[in-house]
Formats: sequence, structure tokens, C-alpha cells
Amino acid sequence: MNVDAAMRLAIEQAEKVKGGTYPNPPVGAVILDRNGEVAGVGATQPTGGPHAEVMALREAGDRAARGTAVVTLEPCNHHGRTPPCVDALLAAGISAVVYAVGDPNAVAAGGAARLAESGVEVTAGVLADEVAGGTLREWLHKQRTGMPHVTWKFATSIDGRSAAADGSSQWITSEAARADVHRRRAACDAIVVGTGTVFADDPTLTARLPDGSLAERQPLRVVVGEREISSDANVLNDDSRTMLIRTRDPHEVIKALSDRTDVLVEGGPTLAGAFLRAGVINRILAYIAPILLGGPITAVDDVGVLSIAHAQRWRFDGIESIGPDVLLSLVPE
Amino acid sequence: MNVDAAMRLAIEQAEKVKGGTYPNPPVGAVILDRNGEVAGVGATQPTGGPHAEVMALREAGDRAARGTAVVTLEPCNHHGRTPPCVDALLAAGISAVVYAVGDPNAVAAGGAARLAESGVEVTAGVLADEVAGGTLREWLHKQRTGMPHVTWKFATSIDGRSAAADGSSQWITSEAARADVHRRRAACDAIVVGTGTVFADDPTLTARLPDGSLAERQPLRVVVGEREISSDANVLNDDSRTMLIRTRDPHEVIKALSDRTDVLVEGGPTLAGAFLRAGVINRILAYIAPILLGGPITAVDDVGVLSIAHAQRWRFDGIESIGPDVLLSLVPE
Repeated sequence: MNVDAAMRLAIEQAEKVKGGTYPNPPVGAVILDRNGEVAGVGATQPTGGPHAEVMALREAGDRAARGTAVVTLEPCNHHGRTPPCVDALLAAGISAVVYAVGDPNAVAAGGAARLAESGVEVTAGVLADEVAGGTLREWLHKQRTGMPHVTWKFATSIDGRSAAADGSSQWITSEAARADVHRRRAACDAIVVGTGTVFADDPTLTARLPDGSLAERQPLRVVVGEREISSDANVLNDDSRTMLIRTRDPHEVIKALSDRTDVLVEGGPTLAGAFLRAGVINRILAYIAPILLGGPITAVDDVGVLSIAHAQRWRFDGIESIGPDVLLSLVPE
Repeated sequence: MNVDAAMRLAIEQAEKVKGGTYPNPPVGAVILDRNGEVAGVGATQPTGGPHAEVMALREAGDRAARGTAVVTLEPCNHHGRTPPCVDALLAAGISAVVYAVGDPNAVAAGGAARLAESGVEVTAGVLADEVAGGTLREWLHKQRTGMPHVTWKFATSIDGRSAAADGSSQWITSEAARADVHRRRAACDAIVVGTGTVFADDPTLTARLPDGSLAERQPLRVVVGEREISSDANVLNDDSRTMLIRTRDPHEVIKALSDRTDVLVEGGPTLAGAFLRAGVINRILAYIAPILLGGPITAVDDVGVLSIAHAQRWRFDGIESIGPDVLLSLVPE
């Protein structure tokens, strides 16, 4: 298996654990034996558990000797809850290490340098954009800024509506797109809606599997706003925990979630507008269905723009088909 | 050059003449000599002029003997204003013909069969979807239905707005996207707007080259609606001809344009809504800019949908990046 394919396999491993590794990053690793065959795969285990490299080395056993470790993040070089991965790689007799993204964390960094000093051939930057914009996006943001990464997700018709004129909105997007949203919910730390969405749709805000059952991980549910919601609201059921934040200020919401890494805003037009005006959105995910709805209900109301010269400018960083729908990803320009 | 590459080259030739071949289809042809080298390229000439095959054969000269003709449409087998292309191909000693799309026109069809009977190796269907959805889309529609093909084109922010709250809309999309629109204008037969767009934007509705000068071909400009427009309106200037149609009924507009093949609707929210409600749109082209605008001005108002169950359902048949923007193409489901 070539190194790119091995990195893709490592990314797949990381995707499986995304959301469950706090405060460690969701990392994937693949060990290729000296003949380039896959000898082991691994991903970061839940808090305090082994890192991806160690899991992959365990599976590879003796086959790791003179092999190549392919990892989505630079192997760590510090004693945290576990010993440094660099030690484990050297002990296993790995002769080459390939990684995607350097570790921005000053405490954990230096792994690549120590491996190279020990005679290991080190290659950095393989599929770096894919990893930095994918499995490690939110964790890297948190490392850089100290703040959680906030994604605004919305489903819309091609004419920008989030519901038909009568308010009906189930469903705008396809089953495939909704399954994608549930995967993202299961991988994030918190889902934010406004009281308006609770009143309008009474959502459960859980992450579900395609068969309708609850996913193993459930994000924190966060309801934002000054109105009182009913104690019968679905969002208060026992499927997950729920935090009520009595404010309309997005900055206060982010502050209340500052120990989180990956926050998903799923609110309606008013909440989305408030977050966009406050400039606290780091990524937009627009699920666009090939339908037309017309009418007065748009996905966002007021983003604080009066004139085209002052439009909020973003940049597409991903375009993909999901079933019959299109998913556009945007980041600030 | 392999056959797929030659077909792509033929498609490029066809693109250059699209809009200028009425009533003939815009076809491209490439002649590969017996060694597979490009010996000639050609495209349909303006009305009454030679077809693509003949142009390519002329350029190829003697090198056509035992060569391959690669054509976007099945070579014709009838005497129209010009002799059958099949005769020209046989006379040149072509030994193989590859084409993308069969001729749906009963009068002109039968070319493939006659070539095969004459001992020519005939291959159909190479890049057929690309041609049928591209250079020949509108002409094939006209052959099938007898009606012009109608495309609704709009530019929008990712939140579905066609202007900011103060009405400003220049420009939502990038220079690259606008250049793409001008290429489409130059290739179409008529551009339709409502009187509302004339009052709001006073557009010239011409096809322009990137340097701002007028393109060689200018489509007919069509203004639809019952309101009187000023004789000073830019749409009435001398850059092209203009038709005023005093109706609000999209069916009457299509009827008035029934001798055309490729009609582009560029109207505002009201006109677009009327055409969509009337079910006369065959394709939607949505140029989506990575900006947020919010506010009350959407690209389309009322498409006749009250409830999500009755949404107008379309299907994405193209997704591409154009500069910083995204172009989504949709056809009826």
C-alpha cells in the first residue's frame, strides 16, 4: 500500500473516534511492515487511553520492525497520561514515520525532530490539507485560539428556504444528507439551538444511527434564549444532557462552552443571524437540496448587511454530493 | 490521440460555434489520421455553410484516408442546404467513425447505418452524456419537443439572496462567474427579463467579452410584462435587437419565441417565479457566491409551493467551481 492510501486509511480510523477522545485529538495511525503491507491500524482511545500509534503498533507486533508508521498528527514527545509515542515507535524499530499535520501544541511537539535525530526517516505534510480541514479541524482551531470551533449547519432549498410557506420542513434534504448530519452530531461536543427552534420543531437533538436508534455518543444539547421552554420539550428528555443558557448573546454562549472543542449550531434564522453577526462562526455547512420552495421562510434573516459592499465574505473549502443533495463547506475569507 | 481526447477536442470546436448555427446543431468534428494524429478539426458553419465533418475533412486533406472521424453528433445522411456528410466521409476514405449522440431527427438520421453498410467501423455513445447535457442540450430538446429549451439563470448568496437589503446587487458573483454568464449569453438565442428588472437595474443585456467589448453574436433581448418601459432604457439601445412582449403569461412568451432554440431567463424574483410556476423551465443554473447577505430580497418569490410535500423537485446534473463561486445545474426530476 502506498503512503497516500495508508494515510487515507489512517484518516478513516480517526473519523471513527472523532468526538470521543477529549482532550486528546482524534488521530489515526497505520503501520506498514517492511514490505509495505498493512500490519496494524489504530486510533486514539478515550481519554487516558493509548494514542493511535500505540494501538497500531500493538496490532502490528513484530511486523513493525523496519516498517513505516503513517499518522495523521505528528507523534507526541511528552509524558501526559501515557508515555510519548515517539518512545513506542523507536522501541518497535520503526524506520520511517510519515505524518500529515505538525503538532501545534508546544508541550507535545518535537516528536518529528527526536525521531529524525534517532535515525528515523521522517516525512511531514502528506494529505495535510485533508487532515487539517477534516478530522483535526476543530482540535487544531482549539489549539490555536483556545476557543471551541463553531460550525453553523443548515439545510436549504436551492432558493435559500429552510421551510415551505406553511412552516413545514420535514424533510428538505435526503435521508443520505440527514445521516451525514447525525454522524456529525455524534462526533461533536455540543449542539446549539435557540428557543425558537424548540417551540417550532420540538426536536430531540440527538445523534441517531440509520436504523433510528441512538448513537453511542450523544453531544450536549444547548438551548439558547430568554424564553422559558416547556419541561415536556423533547430536548429535555433522557437521551442526553441539556444545558439551558439564558442569553441572546452568542459570545456568552461560546464562553459557557469554552471547555468544548467542536460546537454545532443548528438554530433557525434568528439564532443563526445572531451568531453570524457576532462573527463567532468558524465554518458553514450548507446542505442544499435540489428543490424550490419560495415563500417567506429563509434559513437566516439578518446577518447585519445592508449593502452588497458590506456582504459577509466567506470562501468555499469543500463541495461534495451527498445522495441527491449538495454539501457546501465555507470558511471565513 | 485517443478517442476520448479527440471527442473532447471535438466538443471544444462545437462550443466555439454554439449559438451561430441555427437551424443546424452546433457540432464539432476531429479527423485522426491512420496513426491517430490530429489531421483536421472543424465545427458547423453558420446557416447554409458546411457541416463540422466537412470542415475537418478539408483541413485533413489526404491524411483523412484510412483515418478516424470523431464527431459529437451522428453524421447526417440527407441533402439539406449541403450534401450528406456521410458521402463526404466515404469519399475521403475514412475507415472509422466515432460519434457521441445519435441524430433524433428522422430526416437526417440513418448516417451510422449507411456508414456501417459501406464497411466503416462505427462506434456510438462516446462521451454521449457530456455532449447531450452540454453543446447539444438545447438543440436535442428542440428536436424532441418542438419547443425552445429554457434556462433560468440566477446569481445568489449562499443564503438565497439576489441583492442586499438596500437593493444593491453589483456584484454578487465574481468576475469569473460573470464571464461565464456572458459566454452563455453569446451562445443563446434570446435573453428574457421582466419589466421589473429593467426598472430596477436598467441592464443592457448584452454579451460582452472580458475586456468589456461586445461579443460578436448578440442574443435577442426580450422584455416581458405589461408595464411601459422608458425609451431611454439601456435594453433598447443599438447593441442588439429587442422584443417587447406585453404579457405576464410565460406560455405566451415561449410561444412568441417558438422559432428559437436556446432561451435564457434572467429575470428577477417575480418573473422567475411565474416561469417556475408555469413549469416552462428546463434547466436551472444557480451561480452561488460564498457570501451572506440576509434581508428581504430573494432570487425567487413564489414558486406556487405551500407545503414541503409539494416542493418543486429537481435533480442536480452538474456541480462546478467557477473562480471563488460554485455553479449548480439542475434539471427537472
